[in-house]
Amino acid sequence: MRRLKATISYDGTLFAGYQVQPGERTVQSELETVLTKMHKGGKVKVTASGRTDARVHATGQVIHFDTPLTIPVDRYKKALNVQLPRDIRVLDVEEVAHDFHARYSVSGKRYRYIWNCEEVQSPFSRHYSTDTNGVKPDIEKMTAAAQYIIGTHDFSCFCAANTSVIDKVRTVHSLAFSWHGEELHMTIEGNGFLYNMVRIIAGTLWEVGIGKRKAWELELIIASLDRGNAGKTAPAYGLYLEKVFYKNEI
Amino acid sequence: MRRLKATISYDGTLFAGYQVQPGERTVQSELETVLTKMHKGGKVKVTASGRTDARVHATGQVIHFDTPLTIPVDRYKKALNVQLPRDIRVLDVEEVAHDFHARYSVSGKRYRYIWNCEEVQSPFSRHYSTDTNGVKPDIEKMTAAAQYIIGTHDFSCFCAANTSVIDKVRTVHSLAFSWHGEELHMTIEGNGFLYNMVRIIAGTLWEVGIGKRKAWELELIIASLDRGNAGKTAPAYGLYLEKVFYKNEI
Repeated sequence: MRRLKATISYDGTLFAGYQVQPGERTVQSELETVLTKMHKGGKVKVTASGRTDARVHATGQVIHFDTPLTIPVDRYKKALNVQLPRDIRVLDVEEVAHDFHARYSVSGKRYRYIWNCEEVQSPFSRHYSTDTNGVKPDIEKMTAAAQYIIGTHDFSCFCAANTSVIDKVRTVHSLAFSWHGEELHMTIEGNGFLYNMVRIIAGTLWEVGIGKRKAWELELIIASLDRGNAGKTAPAYGLYLEKVFYKNEI
Repeated sequence: MRRLKATISYDGTLFAGYQVQPGERTVQSELETVLTKMHKGGKVKVTASGRTDARVHATGQVIHFDTPLTIPVDRYKKALNVQLPRDIRVLDVEEVAHDFHARYSVSGKRYRYIWNCEEVQSPFSRHYSTDTNGVKPDIEKMTAAAQYIIGTHDFSCFCAANTSVIDKVRTVHSLAFSWHGEELHMTIEGNGFLYNMVRIIAGTLWEVGIGKRKAWELELIIASLDRGNAGKTAPAYGLYLEKVFYKNEI
Protein backbone atom coordinates (compact mmCIF):
# COMPACT_ATOMS: atom_id res chain seq x y z
CA MET A 1 0.00 0.00 0.00
CA ARG A 2 1.16 3.52 -0.82
CA ARG A 3 -0.13 6.60 0.97
CA LEU A 4 -0.91 9.44 -1.41
CA LYS A 5 -1.37 13.11 -0.50
CA ALA A 6 -3.47 15.20 -2.87
CA THR A 7 -4.05 18.94 -2.97
CA ILE A 8 -7.51 19.73 -4.29
CA SER A 9 -9.62 22.76 -5.18
CA TYR A 10 -13.39 22.85 -5.16
CA ASP A 11 -16.21 25.26 -5.83
CA GLY A 12 -18.38 24.79 -2.74
CA THR A 13 -21.53 26.20 -4.34
CA LEU A 14 -23.21 22.88 -5.11
CA PHE A 15 -21.90 20.89 -2.14
CA ALA A 16 -23.54 20.30 1.22
CA GLY A 17 -19.98 20.61 2.58
CA TYR A 18 -16.87 18.48 2.55
CA GLN A 19 -17.88 15.61 4.80
CA VAL A 20 -20.05 12.65 3.79
CA GLN A 21 -23.70 13.06 4.82
CA PRO A 22 -26.35 10.56 3.84
CA GLY A 23 -28.41 11.77 0.87
CA GLU A 24 -26.27 14.87 0.32
CA ARG A 25 -23.77 15.75 -2.39
CA THR A 26 -20.45 16.26 -0.61
CA VAL A 27 -16.82 16.61 -1.74
CA GLN A 28 -15.73 13.54 0.23
CA SER A 29 -18.44 11.34 -1.27
CA GLU A 30 -17.56 12.43 -4.82
CA LEU A 31 -13.88 11.67 -4.16
CA GLU A 32 -14.59 8.30 -2.58
CA THR A 33 -16.99 7.31 -5.37
CA VAL A 34 -14.35 7.96 -8.04
CA LEU A 35 -11.51 6.33 -6.07
CA THR A 36 -13.61 3.27 -5.32
CA LYS A 37 -14.38 2.99 -9.05
CA MET A 38 -10.65 3.24 -9.82
CA HIS A 39 -10.06 0.45 -7.31
CA LYS A 40 -12.60 -1.82 -9.00
CA GLY A 41 -15.05 -1.48 -6.14
CA GLY A 42 -12.51 -1.75 -3.33
CA LYS A 43 -13.72 0.95 -0.91
CA VAL A 44 -11.22 3.81 -0.52
CA LYS A 45 -11.50 6.07 2.52
CA VAL A 46 -10.38 9.67 2.03
CA THR A 47 -9.12 11.76 4.95
CA ALA A 48 -9.01 15.55 4.65
CA SER A 49 -7.18 18.23 6.68
CA GLY A 50 -10.61 19.10 8.07
CA ARG A 51 -14.17 19.72 6.94
CA THR A 52 -15.49 22.74 5.15
CA ASP A 53 -19.13 23.78 5.47
CA ALA A 54 -21.78 23.89 2.76
CA ARG A 55 -20.89 26.46 0.06
CA VAL A 56 -17.40 27.11 1.49
CA HIS A 57 -14.72 26.94 -1.23
CA ALA A 58 -11.23 25.48 -1.25
CA THR A 59 -8.23 26.40 -3.37
CA GLY A 60 -5.81 24.28 -1.36
CA GLN A 61 -7.58 21.55 0.62
CA VAL A 62 -5.39 18.53 1.34
CA ILE A 63 -6.48 14.88 1.53
CA HIS A 64 -4.76 11.53 1.89
CA PHE A 65 -5.74 7.98 1.02
CA ASP A 66 -4.03 4.59 0.80
CA THR A 67 -3.88 2.67 -2.45
CA PRO A 68 -2.48 -0.65 -3.69
CA LEU A 69 -2.36 0.73 -7.26
CA THR A 70 1.10 1.42 -8.64
CA ILE A 71 0.07 4.10 -11.18
CA PRO A 72 2.59 7.02 -11.33
CA VAL A 73 1.32 9.91 -9.19
CA ASP A 74 0.84 12.38 -12.05
CA ARG A 75 -1.20 9.81 -13.98
CA TYR A 76 -3.23 9.43 -10.79
CA LYS A 77 -3.91 13.17 -10.93
CA LYS A 78 -5.06 13.00 -14.58
CA ALA A 79 -7.20 9.91 -13.97
CA LEU A 80 -8.93 11.56 -11.03
CA ASN A 81 -9.58 14.81 -12.92
CA VAL A 82 -11.08 12.90 -15.85
CA GLN A 83 -13.59 11.15 -13.60
CA LEU A 84 -14.32 13.80 -10.97
CA PRO A 85 -17.11 16.37 -11.47
CA ARG A 86 -15.79 19.68 -12.80
CA ASP A 87 -16.38 21.48 -9.50
CA ILE A 88 -13.60 19.42 -7.87
CA ARG A 89 -10.08 19.51 -9.35
CA VAL A 90 -6.99 17.66 -8.19
CA LEU A 91 -4.06 20.10 -8.36
CA ASP A 92 -1.30 17.83 -7.14
CA VAL A 93 -0.71 14.24 -6.03
CA GLU A 94 2.41 13.02 -4.22
CA GLU A 95 3.44 9.87 -2.40
CA VAL A 96 4.04 10.42 1.31
CA ALA A 97 5.30 8.41 4.26
CA HIS A 98 2.79 6.15 6.00
CA ASP A 99 2.92 8.31 9.11
CA PHE A 100 1.67 11.34 7.16
CA HIS A 101 -1.92 12.13 8.11
CA ALA A 102 -3.88 14.84 6.27
CA ARG A 103 -5.58 15.85 9.51
CA TYR A 104 -3.30 14.94 12.41
CA SER A 105 -0.09 16.16 10.74
CA VAL A 106 -1.48 19.66 10.14
CA SER A 107 0.68 22.43 11.59
CA GLY A 108 -1.42 25.35 10.32
CA LYS A 109 -3.96 26.66 7.82
CA ARG A 110 -4.60 29.78 5.83
CA TYR A 111 -8.09 30.99 4.93
CA ARG A 112 -9.25 33.87 2.74
CA TYR A 113 -12.52 35.75 3.12
CA ILE A 114 -13.80 37.92 0.25
CA TRP A 115 -16.33 40.76 0.32
CA ASN A 116 -17.54 42.29 -2.94
CA CYS A 117 -18.02 46.03 -2.41
CA GLU A 118 -19.23 46.95 -5.90
CA GLU A 119 -22.36 49.08 -5.86
CA VAL A 120 -24.00 46.31 -7.91
CA GLN A 121 -22.37 42.94 -7.34
CA SER A 122 -21.40 41.22 -10.58
CA PRO A 123 -23.64 38.20 -11.30
CA PHE A 124 -20.43 36.22 -11.81
CA SER A 125 -19.25 36.66 -8.22
CA ARG A 126 -22.53 35.99 -6.42
CA HIS A 127 -21.42 32.54 -5.21
CA TYR A 128 -17.80 33.56 -4.60
CA SER A 129 -17.91 36.66 -2.41
CA THR A 130 -20.19 38.37 0.10
CA ASP A 131 -22.15 41.29 -1.34
CA THR A 132 -21.90 44.48 0.74
CA ASN A 133 -24.34 46.44 -1.46
CA GLY A 134 -21.60 48.93 -2.21
CA VAL A 135 -20.67 49.54 1.43
CA LYS A 136 -16.88 50.04 1.70
CA PRO A 137 -15.55 49.47 5.25
CA ASP A 138 -12.59 51.23 6.86
CA ILE A 139 -9.81 48.63 6.67
CA GLU A 140 -7.54 50.63 8.96
CA LYS A 141 -10.09 50.09 11.74
CA MET A 142 -10.40 46.40 10.82
CA THR A 143 -6.61 46.06 10.87
CA ALA A 144 -6.44 47.75 14.28
CA ALA A 145 -9.05 45.32 15.62
CA ALA A 146 -7.18 42.39 14.11
CA GLN A 147 -4.19 43.11 16.36
CA TYR A 148 -6.19 41.90 19.39
CA ILE A 149 -6.84 38.59 17.63
CA ILE A 150 -3.28 37.87 16.46
CA GLY A 151 -1.51 35.70 19.04
CA THR A 152 -2.47 32.82 21.33
CA HIS A 153 -5.87 33.08 23.00
CA ASP A 154 -8.84 31.05 24.14
CA PHE A 155 -11.10 31.81 21.15
CA SER A 156 -14.36 30.58 22.70
CA CYS A 157 -15.94 33.90 21.64
CA PHE A 158 -15.34 33.00 17.99
CA CYS A 159 -16.53 29.41 18.18
CA ALA A 160 -19.99 28.25 17.10
CA ALA A 161 -21.92 27.04 20.17
CA ASN A 162 -22.57 23.58 18.72
CA THR A 163 -19.07 22.12 19.05
CA SER A 164 -17.60 19.26 21.05
CA VAL A 165 -14.05 20.70 21.14
CA ILE A 166 -12.87 21.35 24.70
CA ASP A 167 -9.55 23.15 24.30
CA LYS A 168 -10.38 26.40 22.51
CA VAL A 169 -6.89 27.88 22.70
CA ARG A 170 -5.46 28.59 19.25
CA THR A 171 -2.69 30.75 17.80
CA VAL A 172 -3.43 33.20 15.00
CA HIS A 173 -0.12 34.00 13.27
CA SER A 174 -1.40 36.64 10.87
CA LEU A 175 -4.63 38.44 10.00
CA ALA A 176 -4.54 41.05 7.24
CA PHE A 177 -6.84 43.02 4.93
CA SER A 178 -6.24 44.17 1.37
CA TRP A 179 -8.21 45.68 -1.51
CA HIS A 180 -8.28 43.90 -4.86
CA GLY A 181 -10.20 46.32 -7.04
CA GLU A 182 -13.58 46.57 -5.30
CA GLU A 183 -13.06 43.29 -3.47
CA LEU A 184 -11.90 43.31 0.13
CA HIS A 185 -9.84 40.25 1.07
CA MET A 186 -9.10 39.07 4.60
CA THR A 187 -6.36 36.47 4.97
CA ILE A 188 -5.89 34.67 8.25
CA GLU A 189 -3.24 32.11 9.15
CA GLY A 190 -3.03 30.10 12.35
CA ASN A 191 -2.14 26.76 13.89
CA GLY A 192 -5.78 25.71 13.93
CA PHE A 193 -9.30 27.09 13.77
CA LEU A 194 -12.46 26.37 15.77
CA TYR A 195 -15.82 25.67 14.14
CA ASN A 196 -16.95 28.82 12.25
CA MET A 197 -14.01 30.75 13.76
CA VAL A 198 -12.94 32.44 10.53
CA ARG A 199 -16.50 33.40 9.57
CA ILE A 200 -17.24 34.81 13.05
CA ILE A 201 -13.98 36.80 12.99
CA ALA A 202 -14.87 38.08 9.51
CA GLY A 203 -18.36 39.06 10.64
CA THR A 204 -17.08 40.78 13.80
CA LEU A 205 -14.28 42.73 12.08
CA TRP A 206 -16.75 43.73 9.36
CA GLU A 207 -18.88 45.38 12.07
CA VAL A 208 -15.74 47.29 13.18
CA GLY A 209 -15.08 48.32 9.59
CA ILE A 210 -18.53 49.87 9.19
CA GLY A 211 -18.37 51.64 12.56
CA LYS A 212 -20.86 49.41 14.38
CA ARG A 213 -18.17 48.39 16.89
CA LYS A 214 -14.88 49.90 18.06
CA ALA A 215 -11.54 48.16 17.48
CA TRP A 216 -10.74 48.10 21.22
CA GLU A 217 -13.91 46.09 21.92
CA LEU A 218 -12.14 43.04 20.48
CA GLU A 219 -9.99 42.76 23.62
CA LEU A 220 -13.15 42.54 25.77
CA ILE A 221 -14.94 40.20 23.37
CA ILE A 222 -12.02 37.74 23.42
CA ALA A 223 -11.64 37.99 27.23
CA SER A 224 -15.36 37.32 27.71
CA LEU A 225 -15.03 33.83 26.14
CA ASP A 226 -18.67 34.37 25.14
CA ARG A 227 -19.81 33.79 21.54
CA GLY A 228 -22.76 36.08 22.28
CA ASN A 229 -20.44 39.09 22.48
CA ALA A 230 -18.93 38.60 19.01
CA GLY A 231 -20.51 39.62 15.70
CA LYS A 232 -22.58 37.76 13.14
CA THR A 233 -21.17 34.73 11.33
CA ALA A 234 -20.21 35.93 7.83
CA PRO A 235 -21.78 33.97 4.93
CA ALA A 236 -20.14 30.70 3.88
CA TYR A 237 -19.74 31.53 0.17
CA GLY A 238 -17.17 34.27 0.85
CA LEU A 239 -14.79 31.80 2.54
CA TYR A 240 -11.88 29.89 0.96
CA LEU A 241 -9.60 27.28 2.51
CA GLU A 242 -6.42 28.42 0.79
CA LYS A 243 -3.51 26.44 2.20
CA VAL A 244 -2.82 23.69 4.70
CA PHE A 245 0.62 23.59 6.30
CA TYR A 246 2.24 20.40 7.61
CA LYS A 247 5.00 19.66 10.09
CA ASN A 248 8.44 20.04 8.45
CA GLU A 249 6.98 22.51 5.95
CA ILE A 250 7.55 26.23 5.83
CA MET B 1 -45.07 56.63 -21.32
CA ARG B 2 -41.30 56.89 -20.87
CA ARG B 3 -38.82 54.72 -22.78
CA LEU B 4 -36.05 53.39 -20.54
CA LYS B 5 -32.74 51.94 -21.67
CA ALA B 6 -31.04 49.54 -19.27
CA THR B 7 -27.56 48.02 -19.39
CA ILE B 8 -27.58 44.58 -17.82
CA SER B 9 -25.13 41.81 -16.96
CA TYR B 10 -25.99 38.15 -16.62
CA ASP B 11 -24.33 34.85 -15.87
CA GLY B 12 -25.61 32.66 -18.71
CA THR B 13 -24.90 29.37 -16.93
CA LEU B 14 -28.43 28.69 -15.77
CA PHE B 15 -30.31 30.25 -18.69
CA ALA B 16 -31.60 28.58 -21.86
CA GLY B 17 -30.53 31.84 -23.53
CA TYR B 18 -31.79 35.41 -23.65
CA GLN B 19 -35.02 35.03 -25.59
CA VAL B 20 -38.33 33.78 -24.18
CA GLN B 21 -38.94 30.10 -24.90
CA PRO B 22 -41.96 28.25 -23.48
CA GLY B 23 -41.02 26.16 -20.46
CA GLU B 24 -37.44 27.45 -20.34
CA ARG B 25 -35.72 29.83 -17.92
CA THR B 26 -34.54 32.76 -20.02
CA VAL B 27 -33.18 36.23 -19.26
CA GLN B 28 -36.03 37.96 -21.10
CA SER B 29 -38.71 36.02 -19.21
CA GLU B 30 -37.10 36.84 -15.85
CA LEU B 31 -36.95 40.54 -16.77
CA GLU B 32 -40.54 40.63 -18.04
CA THR B 33 -41.84 38.77 -14.98
CA VAL B 34 -40.27 41.33 -12.61
CA LEU B 35 -41.32 44.35 -14.71
CA THR B 36 -44.86 43.07 -15.05
CA LYS B 37 -45.01 42.66 -11.26
CA MET B 38 -43.73 46.25 -10.84
CA HIS B 39 -46.50 47.36 -13.20
CA LYS B 40 -49.16 45.60 -11.14
CA GLY B 41 -49.74 42.97 -13.78
CA GLY B 42 -49.61 45.31 -16.78
CA LYS B 43 -47.56 43.27 -19.26
CA VAL B 44 -44.20 44.89 -20.07
CA LYS B 45 -42.37 43.84 -23.24
CA VAL B 46 -38.57 43.98 -23.10
CA THR B 47 -36.51 44.44 -26.28
CA ALA B 48 -32.79 43.59 -26.26
CA SER B 49 -29.95 44.50 -28.64
CA GLY B 50 -30.10 40.88 -29.74
CA ARG B 51 -30.33 37.35 -28.37
CA THR B 52 -27.57 35.44 -26.66
CA ASP B 53 -27.53 31.63 -26.74
CA ALA B 54 -27.83 29.23 -23.82
CA ARG B 55 -24.89 29.62 -21.39
CA VAL B 56 -23.52 32.71 -23.17
CA HIS B 57 -22.75 35.53 -20.71
CA ALA B 58 -23.27 39.27 -20.91
CA THR B 59 -21.42 42.06 -19.16
CA GLY B 60 -23.03 44.81 -21.22
CA GLN B 61 -26.30 43.67 -22.83
CA VAL B 62 -28.72 46.52 -23.52
CA ILE B 63 -32.52 46.42 -23.34
CA HIS B 64 -35.35 48.93 -23.62
CA PHE B 65 -38.92 48.97 -22.41
CA ASP B 66 -41.73 51.52 -22.10
CA THR B 67 -43.24 52.40 -18.75
CA PRO B 68 -45.99 54.69 -17.42
CA LEU B 69 -44.28 54.71 -13.98
CA THR B 70 -42.60 57.97 -12.96
CA ILE B 71 -40.03 56.47 -10.57
CA PRO B 72 -36.58 58.13 -10.86
CA VAL B 73 -34.31 56.01 -13.06
CA ASP B 74 -31.77 55.11 -10.36
CA ARG B 75 -34.59 53.94 -8.05
CA TYR B 76 -35.77 51.87 -11.01
CA LYS B 77 -32.35 50.22 -11.10
CA LYS B 78 -32.46 49.42 -7.36
CA ALA B 79 -36.03 48.14 -7.53
CA LEU B 80 -35.17 45.81 -10.41
CA ASN B 81 -32.04 44.48 -8.71
CA VAL B 82 -33.98 43.73 -5.52
CA GLN B 83 -36.51 41.61 -7.41
CA LEU B 84 -34.38 40.03 -10.13
CA PRO B 85 -32.59 36.71 -9.55
CA ARG B 86 -28.94 37.20 -8.61
CA ASP B 87 -27.66 35.94 -11.95
CA ILE B 88 -29.09 39.03 -13.67
CA ARG B 89 -27.99 42.50 -12.54
CA VAL B 90 -29.05 45.89 -13.83
CA LEU B 91 -25.96 48.08 -14.12
CA ASP B 92 -27.55 51.25 -15.42
CA VAL B 93 -30.96 52.69 -16.32
CA GLU B 94 -31.50 55.88 -18.30
CA GLU B 95 -34.45 57.57 -19.98
CA VAL B 96 -34.12 57.74 -23.76
CA ALA B 97 -36.01 59.28 -26.67
CA HIS B 98 -38.98 57.33 -28.02
CA ASP B 99 -37.15 56.66 -31.27
CA PHE B 100 -34.37 54.78 -29.43
CA HIS B 101 -34.64 51.06 -30.10
CA ALA B 102 -32.35 48.58 -28.29
CA ARG B 103 -32.10 46.46 -31.44
CA TYR B 104 -32.67 48.70 -34.46
CA SER B 105 -30.53 51.58 -33.18
CA VAL B 106 -27.45 49.37 -32.69
CA SER B 107 -24.36 50.62 -34.53
CA GLY B 108 -21.98 47.94 -33.30
CA LYS B 109 -21.13 45.32 -30.67
CA ARG B 110 -18.08 44.03 -28.86
CA TYR B 111 -17.75 40.42 -27.72
CA ARG B 112 -15.06 38.70 -25.66
CA TYR B 113 -14.10 35.03 -25.86
CA ILE B 114 -12.08 33.44 -23.05
CA TRP B 115 -9.99 30.25 -23.09
CA ASN B 116 -8.53 28.92 -19.83
CA CYS B 117 -5.09 27.45 -20.58
CA GLU B 118 -4.19 26.30 -17.06
CA GLU B 119 -2.94 22.73 -16.97
CA VAL B 120 -5.83 22.01 -14.58
CA GLN B 121 -8.71 24.44 -15.06
CA SER B 122 -9.83 26.03 -11.83
CA PRO B 123 -13.24 24.71 -10.69
CA PHE B 124 -14.28 28.35 -10.33
CA SER B 125 -13.89 29.12 -14.04
CA ARG B 126 -15.54 26.01 -15.47
CA HIS B 127 -18.68 27.88 -16.54
CA TYR B 128 -16.83 31.06 -17.53
CA SER B 129 -14.08 29.99 -19.93
CA THR B 130 -13.25 27.17 -22.33
CA ASP B 131 -10.81 24.63 -20.92
CA THR B 132 -7.86 23.88 -23.24
CA ASN B 133 -6.40 21.18 -20.99
CA GLY B 134 -3.23 23.21 -20.64
CA VAL B 135 -2.73 23.71 -24.38
CA LYS B 136 -1.33 27.20 -25.05
CA PRO B 137 -1.86 28.38 -28.64
CA ASP B 138 0.43 30.67 -30.65
CA ILE B 139 -1.35 34.04 -30.53
CA GLU B 140 0.95 35.54 -33.19
CA LYS B 141 -0.47 33.03 -35.66
CA MET B 142 -4.01 33.75 -34.43
CA THR B 143 -3.38 37.48 -34.82
CA ALA B 144 -2.03 36.96 -38.34
CA ALA B 145 -5.16 34.97 -39.26
CA ALA B 146 -7.37 37.66 -37.72
CA GLN B 147 -6.10 40.20 -40.29
CA TYR B 148 -8.06 38.36 -43.01
CA ILE B 149 -11.25 38.73 -40.98
CA ILE B 150 -10.94 42.42 -40.11
CA GLY B 151 -12.81 44.51 -42.68
CA THR B 152 -16.05 44.19 -44.66
CA HIS B 153 -16.81 40.72 -46.01
CA ASP B 154 -19.62 38.31 -46.72
CA PHE B 155 -19.19 36.16 -43.62
CA SER B 156 -21.35 33.23 -44.76
CA CYS B 157 -18.46 30.91 -43.80
CA PHE B 158 -18.83 31.99 -40.17
CA CYS B 159 -22.62 31.76 -40.00
CA ALA B 160 -24.51 28.81 -38.54
CA ALA B 161 -26.43 27.04 -41.32
CA ASN B 162 -29.80 27.43 -39.59
CA THR B 163 -30.36 31.16 -40.13
CA SER B 164 -32.92 33.18 -42.07
CA VAL B 165 -30.64 36.21 -42.55
CA ILE B 166 -30.06 36.94 -46.24
CA ASP B 167 -27.43 39.68 -46.28
CA LYS B 168 -24.35 38.15 -44.63
CA VAL B 169 -22.05 41.11 -45.26
CA ARG B 170 -20.70 42.55 -42.00
CA THR B 171 -17.78 44.76 -40.99
CA VAL B 172 -15.34 43.62 -38.31
CA HIS B 173 -13.57 46.72 -36.95
CA SER B 174 -11.12 44.96 -34.64
CA LEU B 175 -10.14 41.45 -33.61
CA ALA B 176 -7.35 41.04 -31.06
CA PHE B 177 -5.83 38.49 -28.68
CA SER B 178 -4.23 39.02 -25.28
CA TRP B 179 -3.02 36.91 -22.35
CA HIS B 180 -4.44 37.56 -18.89
CA GLY B 181 -2.39 35.22 -16.73
CA GLU B 182 -3.19 31.79 -18.16
CA GLU B 183 -6.38 33.03 -19.79
CA LEU B 184 -6.40 33.88 -23.48
CA HIS B 185 -8.90 36.59 -24.38
CA MET B 186 -10.16 37.35 -27.88
CA THR B 187 -12.02 40.64 -28.32
CA ILE B 188 -13.93 41.34 -31.50
CA GLU B 189 -15.81 44.49 -32.47
CA GLY B 190 -17.98 44.98 -35.51
CA ASN B 191 -21.11 46.61 -36.90
CA GLY B 192 -23.06 43.38 -36.50
CA PHE B 193 -22.61 39.64 -36.14
CA LEU B 194 -24.29 36.66 -37.76
CA TYR B 195 -25.66 33.72 -35.80
CA ASN B 196 -22.73 31.93 -34.03
CA MET B 197 -20.27 34.14 -35.95
CA VAL B 198 -18.07 34.97 -32.94
CA ARG B 199 -17.97 31.36 -31.73
CA ILE B 200 -17.11 30.03 -35.21
CA ILE B 201 -14.37 32.66 -35.62
CA ALA B 202 -13.03 31.71 -32.15
CA GLY B 203 -13.08 28.01 -33.04
CA THR B 204 -11.41 28.57 -36.40
CA LEU B 205 -8.66 30.87 -35.09
CA TRP B 206 -8.06 28.43 -32.22
CA GLU B 207 -7.26 25.76 -34.84
CA VAL B 208 -4.74 28.19 -36.36
CA GLY B 209 -3.23 28.83 -32.91
CA ILE B 210 -2.59 25.13 -32.31
CA GLY B 211 -1.15 24.59 -35.80
CA LYS B 212 -4.09 22.65 -37.22
CA ARG B 213 -4.63 25.32 -39.90
CA LYS B 214 -2.43 28.02 -41.48
CA ALA B 215 -3.23 31.71 -41.08
CA TRP B 216 -3.43 32.25 -44.86
CA GLU B 217 -6.22 29.66 -45.13
CA LEU B 218 -8.59 32.27 -43.66
CA GLU B 219 -8.59 34.17 -46.93
CA LEU B 220 -9.80 31.05 -48.77
CA ILE B 221 -12.29 30.11 -46.07
CA ILE B 222 -13.91 33.56 -46.21
CA ALA B 223 -13.94 33.59 -50.04
CA SER B 224 -15.58 30.15 -50.12
CA LEU B 225 -18.70 31.50 -48.34
CA ASP B 226 -19.01 27.92 -47.04
CA ARG B 227 -19.53 27.21 -43.35
CA GLY B 228 -18.15 23.73 -43.95
CA ASN B 229 -14.67 25.16 -44.58
CA ALA B 230 -14.44 26.99 -41.25
CA GLY B 231 -13.56 25.44 -37.88
CA LYS B 232 -15.62 24.11 -35.01
CA THR B 233 -18.02 26.38 -33.14
CA ALA B 234 -16.31 27.24 -29.83
CA PRO B 235 -18.32 26.45 -26.66
CA ALA B 236 -20.96 28.96 -25.54
CA TYR B 237 -19.73 29.40 -21.94
CA GLY B 238 -16.50 31.12 -23.06
CA LEU B 239 -18.43 33.92 -24.80
CA TYR B 240 -19.39 37.33 -23.36
CA LEU B 241 -21.47 40.11 -24.93
CA GLU B 242 -19.38 43.00 -23.59
CA LYS B 243 -20.69 46.21 -25.12
CA VAL B 244 -23.41 47.42 -27.47
CA PHE B 245 -22.78 50.65 -29.36
CA TYR B 246 -25.56 52.95 -30.59
CA LYS B 247 -25.80 55.62 -33.23
CA ASN B 248 -24.41 58.96 -31.98
CA GLU B 249 -22.20 57.08 -29.51
CA ILE B 250 -18.45 56.66 -29.79
